[in-house]
Amino acid sequence: MVRSANQGARLGVVLGKDYAAQDCLIARALEVVGERWTLLIVRDALFGVRRFSDFLVRLDIPKAVLASRLRALVDNGVMRREPDPDRAGREIYELTEAGLDLWPAIYALRTWAARHRAPASVLFAHAPCGTPIDESGACPACDLTPMPQDVVMSRRPGDRGKREDPVSLRLTEERRLLEPVVR
Amino acid sequence: MVRSANQGARLGVVLGKDYAAQDCLIARALEVVGERWTLLIVRDALFGVRRFSDFLVRLDIPKAVLASRLRALVDNGVMRREPDPDRAGREIYELTEAGLDLWPAIYALRTWAARHRAPASVLFAHAPCGTPIDESGACPACDLTPMPQDVVMSRRPGDRGKREDPVSLRLTEERRLLEPVVR
Repeated sequence: MVRSANQGARLGVVLGKDYAAQDCLIARALEVVGERWTLLIVRDALFGVRRFSDFLVRLDIPKAVLASRLRALVDNGVMRREPDPDRAGREIYELTEAGLDLWPAIYALRTWAARHRAPASVLFAHAPCGTPIDESGACPACDLTPMPQDVVMSRRPGDRGKREDPVSLRLTEERRLLEPVVR
Repeated sequence: MVRSANQGARLGVVLGKDYAAQDCLIARALEVVGERWTLLIVRDALFGVRRFSDFLVRLDIPKAVLASRLRALVDNGVMRREPDPDRAGREIYELTEAGLDLWPAIYALRTWAARHRAPASVLFAHAPCGTPIDESGACPACDLTPMPQDVVMSRRPGDRGKREDPVSLRLTEERRLLEPVVR
C-alpha cells in the first residue's frame, strides 16, 4: 500500500501540474481546462448553472474537487465570483469573456462525439432565426457563428435524458445558453 | 501516509475513469481525450510524429504513461498501430479518420490560448493557396475549412522554440501536417 502510494506520488510529480516544457498553445489551453471535470463545469456554466450547489448536484463530484476546480477557473480568469442577486451573502460563478470564448472548443468536442460516439440528444439552434447550428458551430441560414448568448438549446423530442436531479430537469426545457437556471 | 493514500484511492473511485453519469456528448468526448497528455499525443500525431520513441522524446513523460495513453487511443479508435515501413518488426501509430476529426477541437483550443494566453509561435496556413487559416480554422481566401492534410505549419520567423530534442527541431521546418517526421 505504501509502495503504491509512493508510486502514485512519483508519477504525480513526473506528470506535473502543468505542461511547462511543452512549447505550444494547446498545452497552455490544457493547463487551464485539462483537469478532470473542468470542461464540464464550463459546459454547465454555459448552460446557465451559477451556484456552487447547482454545479454539485449536476456533476456528482466531491465538494472539495468542485471547489478546487472553480478556484482554478477563477484564478485563470475563466470564471468570476459575484454576489448572488437572489441570496444575500451568497455568491455565484459566471463565465468571463475568456470563459465564453471556450464555447467553440467545447462545441467542437461535442461535434466530434456526435460523429464518432453517440447521437446528439441536446440540439443547438441560432436564436434569432431558429436554424440548427452546423457541425462547425455556424448558422447556415445567417452565415455567421453565433456566440453562446445567441444559441438556444433543447432536448431532442422524446428524449428526457437520464439525469433526474432538479438542475438537469430544468435544463431539459428549451432555453438560451447562459440564461440563469432558477430552481 | 496510509491515510492520504486511502483518501487518494477513494477520490480516484469517486472521480472514476469516465463520466458515466454525465448525460452529454462533451463527457463522451472527454472519456476519449480527457486524460492528461492525450490531446498532446494527438497534436503530435497531427504534426507527423508516428514512432513511440519520437512521442517519448517530445513529451518527456514516463514510458508507461505514454504506452497507456496510446493503448487507450487505439482501443477508442482514434489511432491505429501499423508496421513501420522503414524498420522491420517495429510499429508506428497513425491517426484514424476519427483521430483526424479531432483537428477542429484541437485548433479551437489553440485559438483560445492564442487569444487569452500567449502569442502564437506556430502558424498554420492553407497549403494550396498559402493563406493563413483564421481563428475558426477556415481559409478566408478559399472560403472552406481545410482538413489537416491540407494545412501547412511553420514557426513564426525568428522563433526557434525552446525545445531542443531532435523531433521538435525537425518540426521547426515548414511542413504539411501529417507528413511523417523522419530523423
